Amino acid sequence: MKSRALFSLTALSVFVLSSCATTAPSTSAVTAESTAPNIIFMIGDGMGFEYISAYRYAISELGQDELAPTPFDDLLVGAATTYPDDDTWVTDSAAGATALATGYKSYNGAIGLDTHKNPQQTLMERAREHGWGTGAVVTVQVNHATPASFFTHHPSRSLYNDIADSYATQVTNGGWSYDVLLGGGYSYFHRDDVNWLPQLTEQGMQVITQLDQLDEIQQTPVLGLFAPKALPLAIDTRTDRLADMTQHALRLLDQQSEQNGKPFALMIEGSMIDWCGHANDIACAVHEMADFANAVQVVRDYMANNPNTLLVITADHSTGGLTLGQGGEYAWHTDKVMGIQNSFEVMAGELAKRPRSEWREYLTPVLNLPLTDAQWDSLMAVQLDESVQGRERLYPIHQALLAIVTEHTRTGWTTSGHTAVDVPIMAAGPGADLFGGYMNNTEIAKALLKLVR
Amino acid sequence: MKSRALFSLTALSVFVLSSCATTAPSTSAVTAESTAPNIIFMIGDGMGFEYISAYRYAISELGQDELAPTPFDDLLVGAATTYPDDDTWVTDSAAGATALATGYKSYNGAIGLDTHKNPQQTLMERAREHGWGTGAVVTVQVNHATPASFFTHHPSRSLYNDIADSYATQVTNGGWSYDVLLGGGYSYFHRDDVNWLPQLTEQGMQVITQLDQLDEIQQTPVLGLFAPKALPLAIDTRTDRLADMTQHALRLLDQQSEQNGKPFALMIEGSMIDWCGHANDIACAVHEMADFANAVQVVRDYMANNPNTLLVITADHSTGGLTLGQGGEYAWHTDKVMGIQNSFEVMAGELAKRPRSEWREYLTPVLNLPLTDAQWDSLMAVQLDESVQGRERLYPIHQALLAIVTEHTRTGWTTSGHTAVDVPIMAAGPGADLFGGYMNNTEIAKALLKLVR
Ligand SMILES: [Zn+2]
Ligand SMILES: [Zn+2]
Repeated sequence: MKSRALFSLTALSVFVLSSCATTAPSTSAVTAESTAPNIIFMIGDGMGFEYISAYRYAISELGQDELAPTPFDDLLVGAATTYPDDDTWVTDSAAGATALATGYKSYNGAIGLDTHKNPQQTLMERAREHGWGTGAVVTVQVNHATPASFFTHHPSRSLYNDIADSYATQVTNGGWSYDVLLGGGYSYFHRDDVNWLPQLTEQGMQVITQLDQLDEIQQTPVLGLFAPKALPLAIDTRTDRLADMTQHALRLLDQQSEQNGKPFALMIEGSMIDWCGHANDIACAVHEMADFANAVQVVRDYMANNPNTLLVITADHSTGGLTLGQGGEYAWHTDKVMGIQNSFEVMAGELAKRPRSEWREYLTPVLNLPLTDAQWDSLMAVQLDESVQGRERLYPIHQALLAIVTEHTRTGWTTSGHTAVDVPIMAAGPGADLFGGYMNNTEIAKALLKLVR
Repeated sequence: MKSRALFSLTALSVFVLSSCATTAPSTSAVTAESTAPNIIFMIGDGMGFEYISAYRYAISELGQDELAPTPFDDLLVGAATTYPDDDTWVTDSAAGATALATGYKSYNGAIGLDTHKNPQQTLMERAREHGWGTGAVVTVQVNHATPASFFTHHPSRSLYNDIADSYATQVTNGGWSYDVLLGGGYSYFHRDDVNWLPQLTEQGMQVITQLDQLDEIQQTPVLGLFAPKALPLAIDTRTDRLADMTQHALRLLDQQSEQNGKPFALMIEGSMIDWCGHANDIACAVHEMADFANAVQVVRDYMANNPNTLLVITADHSTGGLTLGQGGEYAWHTDKVMGIQNSFEVMAGELAKRPRSEWREYLTPVLNLPLTDAQWDSLMAVQLDESVQGRERLYPIHQALLAIVTEHTRTGWTTSGHTAVDVPIMAAGPGADLFGGYMNNTEIAKALLKLVR
């Protein structure tokens, strides 16, 4: 596990180092005469500035003359406010994505609806209306808040089945709004009493459930549902899963574009940066950032060959109140962060399966931290409530691991939820000049919507 | 107290609203032929992105269509890394200021020296060498880390007397590097066995110790030492003290510039944003931000009449691990933050003077928060160690107040120190195009140094 994760990160930095020099971002203006550019909208769910700082330091080496380059380095143009139209300054991912997809602020939980629960046209719907190719690539279920807000309209993000049904009935009605939709969520499209898959296939939608089946897909449309719900976390599997899906989505949309002479709009979400943030799991977060950065690099490589492509990157909000410094110490120990081999979720699950006598043997090479006797004792003293089921039951282990990792790495967190702090805006390519400085998140959407014509 | 602080903030937002429309920032390039611009370098000590977000939301009203405008809104151009050349990613203010003043990363604690303890030319020294006017305006003692790094060279920031002596001997040697130096620090220039003031006056330096004496100063050079050490906090006094000093500094430097035909370089520090961050005192932080924002507005008004002026704003690091969200709640309660009337420091000092029986009566209108019985009990139960002296003795009261304010406002903090998270870069005026995207803090200094010619 260790060598894989670290190799992937190291390979990235070398890769980026060599490619950055040749792909300085262009920011030419889009004129009325020029052909509308492809739009690639990348959203790091929960990716505040601190996640970019964390990723950069995590792959860099203390004491070197330079930090490791990242594909973000020459893209930053501004920052966005994220507040919803609700009784709080702190948005959820649904209101955040709705703002970014439609240009309308809404209440927390809204999927493609304004505060009056009126559906508002999304970037993808407008693109479709103009004959553009459309798509989304995510690492959670495709019916999760962010992608759902680009393609559907629902009063609540928690209506997972209804959202899956919306995606499906768009196809059975013959008016679907996506040519490529890749992520997880199989269990929502084939559940108890409902199985949409045969009907989708009948309508010409290629439905696949394994990531490597993408190699065989030769044309749009395709619906890839690569996990029952979300894909497994990057730290527990690989840091190129989003890059891999992105590569295929670009191949298929580019080909469609070649055929019909129309641009495409693609939304790519680093969905689980947010999940690691909710879990206050720094190693998890840095690996999701690596996965997202690898996808950014794939997009930049595509742009090098297809310069009429606009890339905009932002976040819907920041998660967890992450900061790189904790408990009064002037330090953030990246070597220790990078030594951690698995997510808290996997560690807690593995520990719960084992007798306490085996915990130390299991955990020593996974945490890779010099635990004090008191810290081992705190772990061993964790009480599990056997009457509680599922993830909740593991919560005390999770909290004990968090306290230990906090102490050793000096990573700070303030909440298991979101924060109101502004998030980065990055942009390159034709139309990039429309983005910059402080923007409201709705302004980003409005600028993108105007480019679809 | 309440009406004063709130009025000042409200006045600001109206003020900014009307002036923003007329002073859109210019970002024209500086060419070899054009006259070198004045350089105004503003540093928010500890001012990470989260402080800007906090300030903006604090002066805005939930449920309104628009956020309140701030003088920062149209200035953001990028973000800077802040790491020192030390065994940690987390910088202190000395290494941070040295990087921003000289273009050299150094060890934590260094004042104008590189890691080999060699003095490196500072922005102000270079400006002086080219006959420019120079100055600094700060709210802490002028011999504190940030201003000291722009004018002196010392192996440690804690050598306060040595740094004061450096400022003084520059004058007695007739080769001083500042025309205007305004802040606190009187007690270092006139201490036990040493009194520099008569000698300074003899050399033509106008030395004043009251802020309103500035009205009578008609020309440079002037040294204003308006407090024994730091000025009192903005929340406890006024939110236009930095603006006031800035106005006078600009008047005097502008006049000198008119006379000798040379530009000036002025460093303006919102010094105590950082102090509120160390104290994890959110109301304190928002008021220091208002004070800094008011000074930014003064500079922007000056630029409107003097367009050959470059403004660059950044921070040396972020402090406290501030985030706007805490404890899992999707909320940050600005109304409660803005209701708080004094700093923790003043509240703790006042409480310590009083019998417990009077605490509730004193604190109720100062905190303005609906404390639960349990919260009152937690305060009353605070144990003070009478054998401890000074600020340290008040620490338990401070911590009890912090816990209460955290709970009510949902403000998150992770440390009493600094963090490694990247900080904002803002710029406007001729040469502003040299700043943008991700920059190392040393690159900011190098770009500024090049403009001095
Ligand atoms: Zn979230
Ligand atoms: Zn500090």
